[in-house]
Parts: sequence; C-alpha cells; structure tokens
Amino acid sequence: MGASSGFVLWFTGLSGAGKSTLAASIAPLLEARETSVEVLDGDEIRAHLSQGLGFTKDDRDMNVRRIGFVATLLARNGCAAITAAISPYAAIRSECRARTERSGARFVEVWVNAPLEVVEERDTKGLYAKARAGLIKHFTGVSDPYEAPAAPEVVVHTGEESVEESVSKILQFLEAEGLVRPEAVPG
Amino acid sequence: MGASSGFVLWFTGLSGAGKSTLAASIAPLLEARETSVEVLDGDEIRAHLSQGLGFTKDDRDMNVRRIGFVATLLARNGCAAITAAISPYAAIRSECRARTERSGARFVEVWVNAPLEVVEERDTKGLYAKARAGLIKHFTGVSDPYEAPAAPEVVVHTGEESVEESVSKILQFLEAEGLVRPEAVPG
Repeated sequence: MGASSGFVLWFTGLSGAGKSTLAASIAPLLEARETSVEVLDGDEIRAHLSQGLGFTKDDRDMNVRRIGFVATLLARNGCAAITAAISPYAAIRSECRARTERSGARFVEVWVNAPLEVVEERDTKGLYAKARAGLIKHFTGVSDPYEAPAAPEVVVHTGEESVEESVSKILQFLEAEGLVRPEAVPG
Repeated sequence: MGASSGFVLWFTGLSGAGKSTLAASIAPLLEARETSVEVLDGDEIRAHLSQGLGFTKDDRDMNVRRIGFVATLLARNGCAAITAAISPYAAIRSECRARTERSGARFVEVWVNAPLEVVEERDTKGLYAKARAGLIKHFTGVSDPYEAPAAPEVVVHTGEESVEESVSKILQFLEAEGLVRPEAVPG
C-alpha cells in the first residue's frame, strides 16, 4: 500500500543550522500532497527509544542508528520519514542510508549547510556559549567533529537562504525524483 | 495516505505459546489484502533499539514501551504493526494501547492463551527447563508473573487450536471491524 513512494528525508547539520525548522516546515507541505509523513525529532527519539544514552561517540552513534532503524521501517511502509538529528558522523549516516536502500526505499540526505560562525553567532539555544565554556562536552563543531556529507542529494545554505527557499529546493528534488506528487492546482 | 486503516496487532502470551508463529502466519495474509504490514519481532527490536537492556522488570517494561512507540508510529501511518513480545505486565500493555489509540489508530490485543503446562511440556527452546533450574532469572510463568489480559479483542487457544484456526479467528475479527478488506475472491 503506497510502499513504493516511501522515503527517508535525512537532515544533517550543525546544531542551530535549521534542521528542525526545515523538517517542521516541509512536513505539512508533504501531507498536503497526500504523502504520509512522520517527523522523527531527535529529542523525541531520545526520550522514547534512547533513555540512558549519553553523548559519547558510541552513544550518539547508537541513537542515530536507532533513528535510522525506525525511519527505515516507516519508509518501507510508504511513509515519508523525516529525521532531524545532527548525525555528525559520515559512516553512521552511510549505514543508515544502506539500511533504507536495502529495504527498497529511497534515502534523501539534505545537508543543512550553515557555517559554524553563523550558527554560533545566532546561538539560539545558548548551547555554543556553554560548549565554549566547557560546560557541554562532545559538542559538535566545538569539541566534536562534524563530517560533512560528500554527496548529499540536496544542499541548503541556511545562512543565506530563507526557510521558504530551502524548502522549495528540497521539494523540487523530491518532485523531480517522483517521490512526491506535483503541487495540486487549486480550482 | 491510508492512515485510517492502520492498527496495532498486539500478541501477548507466555514464551512458547505461539506468538511469533501466529505473527509470521498472518502477516502474508494481511499483505495479500493490500494492507502494509510490519512484524516487530521482540528479538529484532532488542537487537536494534534495546541493546544493553536486560530482563529486570524496569528493562522489560522499557523494551515493551519501545515496541509500543514504534508500533504506534507505523499504525498511525496506515500500517498493520504486528508485535510478538511476551509483554507480561497489564499496565504496560495498557500504556501502549492508550498511546496507539491517542494517535487515532486501533489497538487489537490478541491473548495467545496456552496453559503453562502445555508450553512447558513442549519447551521448544529448552528455556523452561533452564528457568526451572535457576539458570534464567525473571522467566515469565516460572519466576516472573504473567498478567493475563482482562479484555483482549481476541483470545486464541493455541494449546488446542491449529495455527490456521487461530489465524482465522483473528482475521474474522479484523474483517468484522473493517480493519482489513474481505478476502479477495479469485477469478
């Protein structure tokens, strides 16, 4: 039932780059195109599936793998599974991609590419200041690496583009690949 | 997209009662009726979502909650999510039911009711012998309680019925409730 149209829309990027904002913005637009959508928010997954895991590399890897496992279950059942975890390590993202593709669903990696200077300057949650002060360990971009995607399906530059522009880029890709219906024409 | 027809088919019962056999037997029949199906096997979930959890009450509860969380995500996106964990505690099953129903999907609890004497006599995996010998702690029915469902949607008596009979009972319920299409008539 619709399984052929399932896909994972995997946002990756620094904290504060705009992953969750883009996920929340694109979800209703996909629903409007008759795609079943689930946003797997990093915090919600931690609360329900990864209680007890911390932020060491092993624990972060396990959390990202769990997100990938659940996203694949949804995608292979016809759902657009949107993930918005930092997912800093290329190898773990590759693992998640391979799992999704083995299941017969598409994996669309969106690199939310905002420069560290920009997200640190914004510091919407005050996390970069805390990380610089040493109050948060293993903070991506500050005390932990971010491995940029080598070949993401879509790159959005949230330091320069508006949310609408970034969302539009992603929708164009999904349409071109036949993963979502073209926008309904009113009337 | 098809979200209205999603449901959780939650098997509960003693180890060896036939939960996994019934899950594996009914899954292809549901697929044949154009229902998207995912079997959340207890062992697979442990391997992917609950590494590190043991078999104390807290750990078992958390594992069952995780199964319920994932099953709900699938069901609210139109999938038939089949679970086959012992899920011995009534309160945790109730929590899972409430989560699924809040999401707008149906929760169908199937009590796989085989008497302890029967499953212990079969002891297909040799686990009851080990539990009686004290080699496995917290074993449901031996050293840990099994709280039978008070009001399950379906009860199957796998000590007496054939797999086909039990599957047929469950299908009849799902059909009567409009959760799956009636069997296609060949021709």
